[in-house]
Amino acid sequence: MSPVKVFGSAPFTNVVRVLLCLEEVGADYEIVDVDFGDREHKGPDHLARNPFGQVPAFQDGDLMLFESRAICRYILRKHRATDEANLLREGDPSESAVVDAWLDVEALRYEPSVHAVFVQRRVVPALGGEPDERVIAESIARLRETLAVYEARLEATRGYLAGGEVSLADLSHFPYTRYFMEMPYAVPVFGAYPRVTAWWERLLTRPSVRKVAAMMSGGEG
Amino acid sequence: MSPVKVFGSAPFTNVVRVLLCLEEVGADYEIVDVDFGDREHKGPDHLARNPFGQVPAFQDGDLMLFESRAICRYILRKHRATDEANLLREGDPSESAVVDAWLDVEALRYEPSVHAVFVQRRVVPALGGEPDERVIAESIARLRETLAVYEARLEATRGYLAGGEVSLADLSHFPYTRYFMEMPYAVPVFGAYPRVTAWWERLLTRPSVRKVAAMMSGGEG
Repeated sequence: MSPVKVFGSAPFTNVVRVLLCLEEVGADYEIVDVDFGDREHKGPDHLARNPFGQVPAFQDGDLMLFESRAICRYILRKHRATDEANLLREGDPSESAVVDAWLDVEALRYEPSVHAVFVQRRVVPALGGEPDERVIAESIARLRETLAVYEARLEATRGYLAGGEVSLADLSHFPYTRYFMEMPYAVPVFGAYPRVTAWWERLLTRPSVRKVAAMMSGGEG
Repeated sequence: MSPVKVFGSAPFTNVVRVLLCLEEVGADYEIVDVDFGDREHKGPDHLARNPFGQVPAFQDGDLMLFESRAICRYILRKHRATDEANLLREGDPSESAVVDAWLDVEALRYEPSVHAVFVQRRVVPALGGEPDERVIAESIARLRETLAVYEARLEATRGYLAGGEVSLADLSHFPYTRYFMEMPYAVPVFGAYPRVTAWWERLLTRPSVRKVAAMMSGGEG
């Protein structure tokens, strides 16, 4: 059986999310680079894979998918026979619903705050602009509110966001948090929440995370 | 068996999404109002239901959930034995992945554009402020880009976003679109996309949508 294909490369946060899941389940996969410099992402071949002209796209035989969290769900369901692939908890309706809830918190609440800081600190200067400090301050304030809820949640579960064991909801935080941790806000913001910090450090010890982190840095892939 | 409880009332878009799913599957449910005027949403009872102090929260026996799309998934899975509850397509891994992808498009791309217009046109004036026309123009431009992709997609599927039959991905668009359609932008924006307009009109004929629309207007519930 030919391996699945991921279109898009490791530095992109939404590609990273997919790679993490593939590594978690031990799937064979092939990375197909999409040349943004050449505007390949807006060309007809890639728009047929992802109609919004973004990465990742994902191919498994006749199935072509986009939206990173949807791709992650598909990968984890396909491999759910293994213990490692129980990251959606779909055997138990209540547990899987709790994973869904915290995955939506990541997508709809956590990521927008961190993304806004990333854009102001990394993207705007790269384009020759000045970061908007008001946007940064508001985003950091929203992030702190979210992390305060995480801190209480992690105290209650004594482990991870959706319960005592790791789930997709936790792993989905990795891509943007990795970049956030390289910025000067990381220590003051995360340092105020010891259980969140311990949770992040636990995620960093996972083999999937270590491998994909190296790919983000250009060490592999 | 006592009915499930929805905390939060029908005018709130994220509550509407949950009510639509309950109506689609024909479940018994009880609506428990949360008094925002009295700041009940930030009180300890409600924070125990939803740690972010928002609506909806959802209770089914011992299970307490938040995040509207996670609640919808739970409801649809619980009732998936009925034909009407096949709105996630979870019997087929490829089809369910396509539903997941278009549900994420709604949550991460469509709703932020419409939400931004809603905030500027409805919330800001209600608080005594002036709408930011630049934010409105940028959001409308992003919405048009999204609808252009929807138009091509609906031409290809000849029905709904995730295929020939309705899914949660379509229904999840209802709450904010209902409010958007009351605004002056609705006709010029949606009118440019005839298949999108036909899709919206088809959604409006569903009994679940008609019933919940009446609840949003204060006609019931």
